[in-house]
Amino acid sequence: MSKKYVYFFGNGKAEGNAHLKDLLGGKGANLAEMTNLGIPVPAGFTISTEVCTYFYEHGGEYPKGLKETVAENLSRVEEVMGKRFGDPEDPLLVSVRSGARVSMPGMMDTVLNLGLNHETVKGLAKRSKNERFAYDCFRRFVQMYGDVVLGMKPEKKDDIDPFEEILNDKKKESGVERDIDLSTEDLKDLIDRYIAMIKKKRGIDFPTDPEEQLWQAIGAVFNSWNNERAITYRKLNSIPDDWGTAVNVQSMVFGNLGEKSGTGVAFTRNPATGENVFYGEYLMQAQGEDVVAGIRTPQPINKKQKGESGLPSLEEEMPEIYAQLEDVRRRLEKHYRDMQDIEFTIQDGKLWILQTRTAKRTGFAAIRISVDMVREGLISKEEAIMRIEPEQLNQFLQPIFDDVEKKKAVSSGRLLAHGINAGPGAASGKVVFSAVDAEEMAAKGEDVILVRIETSPEDIKGMSVSKGILTSAGGATSHAALVGRQMGKVCVVGAKDLKIDYKKGQIEAGGRIVKEGDFISIDGTTGEVLEGKIATKPSEVIQVLIDHSMDKESSDVFKDYEALISWSNEIRKLGVRANADRPDQASKAVAFGAEGIGLCRTEHMFFEGNRIDAVREMILASDLEGRKKALAKLLPMQREDFKGIFEVMEPRPVTIRTLDPPLHEFLPREKDEIAELAKKMGMSEESLTQKVESLREANPMLGHRGCRLGIVYPEITEMQVRAIFEAACELAREGKKPKPEIMIPLVGDVKELESQREVVVKVAEEVQKECGERIEYLVGTMIEIPRAALTADSIATVAQFFSFGTNDLTQTTFGLSRDDAGKFLNDYLEKGIWPDDPFQKLDQEGVGQLMKLGVDKGRSANPDLKVGICGEHGGEPSSVEFCHRIGLNYVSCSPFRVPIAIVAAAQAVLREM
Amino acid sequence: MSKKYVYFFGNGKAEGNAHLKDLLGGKGANLAEMTNLGIPVPAGFTISTEVCTYFYEHGGEYPKGLKETVAENLSRVEEVMGKRFGDPEDPLLVSVRSGARVSMPGMMDTVLNLGLNHETVKGLAKRSKNERFAYDCFRRFVQMYGDVVLGMKPEKKDDIDPFEEILNDKKKESGVERDIDLSTEDLKDLIDRYIAMIKKKRGIDFPTDPEEQLWQAIGAVFNSWNNERAITYRKLNSIPDDWGTAVNVQSMVFGNLGEKSGTGVAFTRNPATGENVFYGEYLMQAQGEDVVAGIRTPQPINKKQKGESGLPSLEEEMPEIYAQLEDVRRRLEKHYRDMQDIEFTIQDGKLWILQTRTAKRTGFAAIRISVDMVREGLISKEEAIMRIEPEQLNQFLQPIFDDVEKKKAVSSGRLLAHGINAGPGAASGKVVFSAVDAEEMAAKGEDVILVRIETSPEDIKGMSVSKGILTSAGGATSHAALVGRQMGKVCVVGAKDLKIDYKKGQIEAGGRIVKEGDFISIDGTTGEVLEGKIATKPSEVIQVLIDHSMDKESSDVFKDYEALISWSNEIRKLGVRANADRPDQASKAVAFGAEGIGLCRTEHMFFEGNRIDAVREMILASDLEGRKKALAKLLPMQREDFKGIFEVMEPRPVTIRTLDPPLHEFLPREKDEIAELAKKMGMSEESLTQKVESLREANPMLGHRGCRLGIVYPEITEMQVRAIFEAACELAREGKKPKPEIMIPLVGDVKELESQREVVVKVAEEVQKECGERIEYLVGTMIEIPRAALTADSIATVAQFFSFGTNDLTQTTFGLSRDDAGKFLNDYLEKGIWPDDPFQKLDQEGVGQLMKLGVDKGRSANPDLKVGICGEHGGEPSSVEFCHRIGLNYVSCSPFRVPIAIVAAAQAVLREM
Repeated sequence: MSKKYVYFFGNGKAEGNAHLKDLLGGKGANLAEMTNLGIPVPAGFTISTEVCTYFYEHGGEYPKGLKETVAENLSRVEEVMGKRFGDPEDPLLVSVRSGARVSMPGMMDTVLNLGLNHETVKGLAKRSKNERFAYDCFRRFVQMYGDVVLGMKPEKKDDIDPFEEILNDKKKESGVERDIDLSTEDLKDLIDRYIAMIKKKRGIDFPTDPEEQLWQAIGAVFNSWNNERAITYRKLNSIPDDWGTAVNVQSMVFGNLGEKSGTGVAFTRNPATGENVFYGEYLMQAQGEDVVAGIRTPQPINKKQKGESGLPSLEEEMPEIYAQLEDVRRRLEKHYRDMQDIEFTIQDGKLWILQTRTAKRTGFAAIRISVDMVREGLISKEEAIMRIEPEQLNQFLQPIFDDVEKKKAVSSGRLLAHGINAGPGAASGKVVFSAVDAEEMAAKGEDVILVRIETSPEDIKGMSVSKGILTSAGGATSHAALVGRQMGKVCVVGAKDLKIDYKKGQIEAGGRIVKEGDFISIDGTTGEVLEGKIATKPSEVIQVLIDHSMDKESSDVFKDYEALISWSNEIRKLGVRANADRPDQASKAVAFGAEGIGLCRTEHMFFEGNRIDAVREMILASDLEGRKKALAKLLPMQREDFKGIFEVMEPRPVTIRTLDPPLHEFLPREKDEIAELAKKMGMSEESLTQKVESLREANPMLGHRGCRLGIVYPEITEMQVRAIFEAACELAREGKKPKPEIMIPLVGDVKELESQREVVVKVAEEVQKECGERIEYLVGTMIEIPRAALTADSIATVAQFFSFGTNDLTQTTFGLSRDDAGKFLNDYLEKGIWPDDPFQKLDQEGVGQLMKLGVDKGRSANPDLKVGICGEHGGEPSSVEFCHRIGLNYVSCSPFRVPIAIVAAAQAVLREM
Repeated sequence: MSKKYVYFFGNGKAEGNAHLKDLLGGKGANLAEMTNLGIPVPAGFTISTEVCTYFYEHGGEYPKGLKETVAENLSRVEEVMGKRFGDPEDPLLVSVRSGARVSMPGMMDTVLNLGLNHETVKGLAKRSKNERFAYDCFRRFVQMYGDVVLGMKPEKKDDIDPFEEILNDKKKESGVERDIDLSTEDLKDLIDRYIAMIKKKRGIDFPTDPEEQLWQAIGAVFNSWNNERAITYRKLNSIPDDWGTAVNVQSMVFGNLGEKSGTGVAFTRNPATGENVFYGEYLMQAQGEDVVAGIRTPQPINKKQKGESGLPSLEEEMPEIYAQLEDVRRRLEKHYRDMQDIEFTIQDGKLWILQTRTAKRTGFAAIRISVDMVREGLISKEEAIMRIEPEQLNQFLQPIFDDVEKKKAVSSGRLLAHGINAGPGAASGKVVFSAVDAEEMAAKGEDVILVRIETSPEDIKGMSVSKGILTSAGGATSHAALVGRQMGKVCVVGAKDLKIDYKKGQIEAGGRIVKEGDFISIDGTTGEVLEGKIATKPSEVIQVLIDHSMDKESSDVFKDYEALISWSNEIRKLGVRANADRPDQASKAVAFGAEGIGLCRTEHMFFEGNRIDAVREMILASDLEGRKKALAKLLPMQREDFKGIFEVMEPRPVTIRTLDPPLHEFLPREKDEIAELAKKMGMSEESLTQKVESLREANPMLGHRGCRLGIVYPEITEMQVRAIFEAACELAREGKKPKPEIMIPLVGDVKELESQREVVVKVAEEVQKECGERIEYLVGTMIEIPRAALTADSIATVAQFFSFGTNDLTQTTFGLSRDDAGKFLNDYLEKGIWPDDPFQKLDQEGVGQLMKLGVDKGRSANPDLKVGICGEHGGEPSSVEFCHRIGLNYVSCSPFRVPIAIVAAAQAVLREM
């Protein structure tokens, strides 16, 4: 074994460090780093992710020599800790934990208290002077090992866990309610019953050899990388399947050793709101998983936080330990320069740190913390920007509950409970009590709130489709809070006043009953839970920017948002435009910082009011004369549309696409609609039906649309261009500076563009001459079919700009209809054939390759070519970064995604450096 | 003027030669070449095609200095001919003719006898001692100049020509029937009336200055490059619009000078059949256009040909001239090493050659002549192959009339007439009398025979859509014969016994009447015209190769065909396979020389017999079990299908594509069909309707099809692979060598192929183990969506072969549905946006670029990658050549196109050298 596969840490020195995350996983790298920092970390070692890769590539085999190396490292741990593994007198116990490059909380398996058997338990009892503790450890170990390594799970979905079943029986027999009230003898009996049950169900003897236990546990952790939960989680979070996990083997320390022991989780700041306060929870006489699992409601770590639960805090109960913890907090934040998520255990009055990692946070928190840390001088603006996931800006734009409406609801007694504000935002939806129901109802298009006593990793799919998540147990670091926060869900946890009854399918609170399917509202910013629907109002950012109903000085949220956007604007090179079809959309776009319109679809205007009549008249006309007559009716309407948009946007450019959809989209399909239209048009129903039929297409996406319309019916293009230039001239006369950019859709050959450009230029010059004004304008094309990208060099000889229409380009490059992909998209994502839905994230390998080709060829023929993107990918961060990399001039996206694109564009610059 | 724009020829010396066709046009280059060869050519000069280009680029202007250069060259002509242009004593007269790089017979304009006015005509009369001749020339000149230069055409389509109208009036007044019977005074009067009519209609005086006449005529010829006829002709023949025409100004010689004068056209071999006999026609006392126009029935040039018309031949009437002509024939064929088309004029007993060019010929003739010339030692096999247009092989495969049926028709009196066999083949269709009617009826899907007294350039569109062309006037060199031959149409001309009456809409012959819309049959091989439909039988090649109903020794046609194919097979490097779905198709493919099957579509088998029931059962099954049950029913049927094909093809490879079309294609659409199926399947009509609806797609072309089916339903692929390997194993057991190549359709990502390859290999190994045979097989993929080509390097790591599915690749690269393109395809072709229908000729610039990318990337990752094409382009010559150039291993096409692909593949090699 020439490669180093195992990394030791302990006693202030570690072989690894924080930079080796790829190899050691986040947990392992940070344990090493903390050890080197002199923070009290129990000794241990990390088996690297390369072993995981090897394990999967060799059907569960380990690299040669690994066993020996592990044994050597175990000896070093024994030395540091002064105990021996399997020593019947004073056994070293270890935890075996997963640890991937990025945290996947609760997704993979862990075994604690490993090394116990009927011999060593006695040594533990003797040394700890606490027999009950020792057998409690042994009982927990058998249960955990049985679950994780031997796969003793409930047989059916709704069955109770087989160990829990025995435990419940035992408690009944012994007449106790809490685990903690079981006697040592009870525990010994429980252990025997557990082992007997394993023997019965699996036909094996529970392994007593600690080394066997260790290797079985290591194998189980590696295997848990590919359990269903972990796979789903990776898919949801775009984590590659081939990263693998490391395994951390670490000396146990015990939060359940006695009254001066406990365990907790803390965040160096508030992970929901981002507020700069130490924030966390702990449980006395417990092991780590008890806090996260949400079985017992934990206590707050400090007085400041106490209001939420009313329980006594660590700061009050163990002020010295709290002071040490505060010191660790300070040192870790200073060292890592980011908010940390710390696991700690107090063993018999001594503080041990078991883990630190960069804490997950909500979008609000992420932005607030980043901006604060810049203000605190801890990080640079650039770092602040890189700390954000641009999508998190969404949370700043989501509606919040209307205060007045909420007050009304409260005063009419609809406030059900107050929980922990774990995920900011406002959500109303129908109550469901299981993840499966959530998936079912959401699939029908219902808004649902998933209501659970506590959530578990099995629930993540259901959580991901819910509008909001509400739990009655668990705290700010419970599974529900962690996952909900990360998904950006509105989330309230630990709303203890709710009595959730799965069997009855209801929630009871203060005498009020909410049934499954009833509406409920949760305010993730305040932690309030309310009966029924509550009306929402725009977010503070929207109130300041768009509605002007709030002053920017009075909104901290807005200030954080503004800081981030202005720093991003300083850095980014990519222009950001918006797709907008109407003046009101254009106004929003400008408010969000759009520097122009990248796509104005003229056809959306065609459906409005009585225009559709003129459009239909044009389509149904039997000759050029008839078409021109109908188009003449549309002209003044289109002119007003464009005038409105130019007025908002000038002097910014407005890219207007000429008519794109196939004409049959404007005609009715249903028999009675056809009859009505026929009457209106003075046609026979039969001949109209025939016309509608004759226009129908087998594959409309690939049919008579885009510039193919303008080429067959140049009079349509003429009318649109005339409307554009008449509008522009009217504004120019008022001294304004409209900048139209005429964009020809679906071009696949330079001759198509030439032919349409001729029409555009002819009419544009005509109108300008008529009105005596000069309008600055460009003529360009969409690049949205592969042939356009492939022949971009010849197209660029005629085009002044390109705009990638990546929606259609994705459809044609993949041979994939967006309307039909749903039939197999899920199969493809689940089988890992596609990493993402290519309509959401730009497929850089295929579609992106064509884009790069198009840009390079286009610029080779026309160095001044302006190139943008106006597909929906223009507001998706990874796609924006790609656009920056291949040298686009701008991205264009829906107005609400402009801020996201701005930050993503800045990140693209920073990432390149 | 630094550039040389004008090239002189005359008196045995010329500045140009045959290699300068691009510059001088075919006619000009050959006039120069003949001059240099010492063949008697009237002196003249050629204005190059570059002047044409200049003319169009500069709005009808000429390059500076051109006028002076033309004047200089005119002086040289005057010197050689001993006459002066515009000399009232002895005027030089010239012709002004077009001449493009390739011949466009009759498409552009010509002016003859230029230089005449009221003064010079007197000089001509004096010198020729033939006043009537001189005024006849002047009359013709005014008429032609009026038509060509001044545009005096019939005002409405059916109006008589304005000059013809005056001529007819005059003949009536003078009581004569033929032009030749008009007196000199009559002609003088006619000229006055013509000039008066021009003055009245155009308001101008007829130009009397010869120089003005000359420049006007040159301009008219340049302009005629872009007349409607010429544009249509270029489109039909894929001649670029920017080539332009040259203009030839040449001294006139007169076939109408007197009794010892005449003019004619001759082919050095028979252009319809290819027979090695001198073949031509002439008219005494006529100018050139009289022969081609078909107004008078011309005489044959030799005795051998006399049988066709019974008129006296040149060989008999002027044996000395004929001998000279034979000598010219011999010298030109030896010099040009190809069949020539010669125009000659006899002026007062002296032979002049006015033009030679490579003669157009039918497919039959092309092949026969090429093969003969190899046998004669005149050209090499390679040259022979290059002389063929591969599409011409089609004529060898077209049905011919069944002799027995034809004899029956003749004996029942249905033989209407016997004409000249101008275009071999058999055609039956409805009689139409105008090109417009032909277009209309053909558009409705009717087979039509265009019947005209004579055809004219205006008719070419109608000719191109007709099954056959029949004329009563005109000879083997008439417009109908020339154009029909070139279009590969079945064509009979000069069937003098037919009395065609346009007004009555009927043909009368031997007392029988055939009305418009009645069926008529023409045999272009024998010249027979028959009433009604005649049953056809396979061509001789088919009889020999496929039906084995004819011995190859008794078919000269087959021998020519075979020679060509075998020479091509020696030369080509590209493999040729066929697309065949059934054993009978496979047999044909082998007979035509296919070296394997490049595409066997399994779904075609799905529709046959009662299989569709099992297919539908599979689609409608609600779960995996149900699908497997239905698939089990299909398995034995598919196994038999594959066995049949392997049996025919082994040991050649058979590429089998797994299921491709969307499942809804197998379900009924209509209400009553659904009701019937519901009953059969034991489903409610409602739930079946729902199922059908749920499978319906917005864009089926881009939907759930191809490998997307096999990925969602691997059990379908499993069944198909099992059927393939069970069939192969059964044959292997008999000692045969089936070679299946499993082809996965619509792959866009290597993971799709990986996933399906896994299924294929698993089942293939299973079956081979079960039956104890080893089958040689490959697994590969279609490359039919752009993403597959773009990511071919990664796909090639898994694929053993690629096959370009250029039908779908064209659809996706263009964003163009083949089913819907008809709505605008014609507009696109007419406007010159696309040079060809991209579904017929591979778009090398776009789709081809992706193919090249795919080949290069694929081979870079897998140097052994076998690459083919199985789209319909695989049998289109220009596309085959492209496939050779980018290094494909084989093309695959429909069985009937295999011979075409073979010759095209050989040409590709030769063209590269």
